[in-house]
Amino acid sequence: MTTQPGKTLAVIGGDGIGPEVTAEALKVLEATVGEGTFAYTHYDLGAERWQRTGEVLPDTVLQELKGVDAIVLGAVGAAPGSKAIPSGLLERGLLLKLRFAFDHAVNLRPSRLYPGVSTPLSEAVVSQGDIDFVVVREGTEGLYCGNGGAVRVGTPHELATEVSVNTAYGVERVVRDAFIRAGARRGKLTLLHKHNVLVNAGTLWNRVFNEVGAEYPDVERTYLHIDAAMIAMVVNPAQFDVIVTDNLFGDIITDLAAAVTGGIGLAASANINPSGEFPSMFEPVHGSAPDIAGQGIADPTAAISSMALLLSHLGMPEQASRIDAAVAADITERAAGPVRTTEVGDRIAARLA
Amino acid sequence: MTTQPGKTLAVIGGDGIGPEVTAEALKVLEATVGEGTFAYTHYDLGAERWQRTGEVLPDTVLQELKGVDAIVLGAVGAAPGSKAIPSGLLERGLLLKLRFAFDHAVNLRPSRLYPGVSTPLSEAVVSQGDIDFVVVREGTEGLYCGNGGAVRVGTPHELATEVSVNTAYGVERVVRDAFIRAGARRGKLTLLHKHNVLVNAGTLWNRVFNEVGAEYPDVERTYLHIDAAMIAMVVNPAQFDVIVTDNLFGDIITDLAAAVTGGIGLAASANINPSGEFPSMFEPVHGSAPDIAGQGIADPTAAISSMALLLSHLGMPEQASRIDAAVAADITERAAGPVRTTEVGDRIAARLA
Ligand SMILES: CC(C)[C@H](C(=O)O)[C@@H](O)C(=O)O
Ligand SMILES: CC(C)[C@H](C(=O)O)[C@@H](O)C(=O)O
Repeated sequence: MTTQPGKTLAVIGGDGIGPEVTAEALKVLEATVGEGTFAYTHYDLGAERWQRTGEVLPDTVLQELKGVDAIVLGAVGAAPGSKAIPSGLLERGLLLKLRFAFDHAVNLRPSRLYPGVSTPLSEAVVSQGDIDFVVVREGTEGLYCGNGGAVRVGTPHELATEVSVNTAYGVERVVRDAFIRAGARRGKLTLLHKHNVLVNAGTLWNRVFNEVGAEYPDVERTYLHIDAAMIAMVVNPAQFDVIVTDNLFGDIITDLAAAVTGGIGLAASANINPSGEFPSMFEPVHGSAPDIAGQGIADPTAAISSMALLLSHLGMPEQASRIDAAVAADITERAAGPVRTTEVGDRIAARLA
Repeated sequence: MTTQPGKTLAVIGGDGIGPEVTAEALKVLEATVGEGTFAYTHYDLGAERWQRTGEVLPDTVLQELKGVDAIVLGAVGAAPGSKAIPSGLLERGLLLKLRFAFDHAVNLRPSRLYPGVSTPLSEAVVSQGDIDFVVVREGTEGLYCGNGGAVRVGTPHELATEVSVNTAYGVERVVRDAFIRAGARRGKLTLLHKHNVLVNAGTLWNRVFNEVGAEYPDVERTYLHIDAAMIAMVVNPAQFDVIVTDNLFGDIITDLAAAVTGGIGLAASANINPSGEFPSMFEPVHGSAPDIAGQGIADPTAAISSMALLLSHLGMPEQASRIDAAVAADITERAAGPVRTTEVGDRIAARLA
């Protein structure tokens, strides 16, 4: 006898290694919450569908997705330079479309260096302290709005622009979210920006950071230019607790954060709709990695960790912690060297069953 | 008897540690080329001047600077969060003003890890190969144009924008410069961008990269998204030879590059006006570091290395190589730990005298 499904999940495996890592994520999710807690609907979206039908994300699918409790996403995107698919078509037509359509204002990306995990950083850097921080990346504004254009395209007189759009409303909600998270952690929040050059946006971010910060007097505020943050992240990443930043800076810093904490194969993320009006979406930070797709060697850990973020978002913090603990144990104990995708999933699921 | 000065140099020490490191740079320059090769004019510009007179860069000074053969700059900028000076005033009113007024399209930033230099990267990363690359950063376009604005400032309805401006003309000249440099080095050029999201600018950069690249068939072309470049730079920086990218991505990647090759204290840069119509400008990558100013502990190596870039630009490649060699020898032999500004300058000058 199965219980009536309480929650509906939409699953978009996507391209490249996306479906491979997603399968392991769902395996672990099932092992944690048991059969029947979630009802899954799989959506065939990505490069292959586009090549077959010319469709990226049909409106009817978008409408269906709107009704689910959460979305699990693998990865989308063709190989860079792929002739078959126009650059960015899938990223913008699917991934970013969902982030914008479902108002995923808070893009949450935790980074933690587990004992025994190999990092590109030196022993001297790593021994300074525990590396354990969260980046709260704005997800619905900045340079990701698709606001820009080009004239005289293809000529020697081409002019191309990209516009970063920042609103007090958009900045306030993500900054507030970050203060709340920092308050629940070690009480340190760092704003990354480049306000000495990007004066308009920088002034807004700074003002909101300080105004909202006044409501959270227990959280210590720091500001770092994005370029200076590059240095800080490699010379002493243990200094960070919570980082808040805009969409593009967040994209950049989270890949660096993933690299220093053992690689993109371990980095999970949540795209959260703060109002709860739309489904939030959970995905690994990594892309579709077409170069290693189909070989069964993609690390599914990031996709699996994203399930902890999903459970925590859906009000199951205890089960979320169980996944985190199982992942941590597996990471710490796994042998150095290449992984087999299904083996990692099996091992972590076994710890949770 | 001194020879008639052949070249005129404008010297802008600037703020914080700027004047301290600049003094050592000039000491080394003199030791290399001898007295009388250059005639120096010092310009009192920066935070102090602004506080005294309200002037950042008077038009008369800009006119004078236009006539010199090259500009030596220390660093400008007040402490972040400094109440006394509006954010970005000096950066935009002085440093960026000069880069734009003198059409410094090619911002050249070499990175090299010298033997014995402490790096935040692990032995495993560093042992993969020699780390020795050059970033060619566009210097007159992108998000640095000051093109943006804000409405309803200070209210909950504020909207702030920043516009990245990219022209075929601007992209072509910096990309061509990078291909020529790559051809004279190890023949590898990597374009960094984010063309899957910044489609308008990315399409332009890609097109120009491929079109110009067709003229340099011996140079191997690679493309990396800026976020992926974060990872590449810390897991295997030896893969890079020449990198070309836009103004903001260049700002970000060069601080990371400096960090992995021993720190911002060693990173030199040149702001080159390719047409030769205006003076080029030579400066360390680091900022004014107000926290350590006046203590005589700033590392002047970056400022000194910038003098090699200056000599090379002014047609004295042999003397440039002598400075590079003296710097390399000093870096490799210097004891670990804190430096004394004047001692570094004295030691390197002594090697060159
Ligand atoms: C695939 C791409 C559009 C995406 C982004 O830039 O946000 C990815 O890099 C990420 O970080 O989720
Ligand atoms: C001081 C600042 C305006 C400058 C920049 O952003 O270009 C600096 O960071 C640099 O890299 O030269």
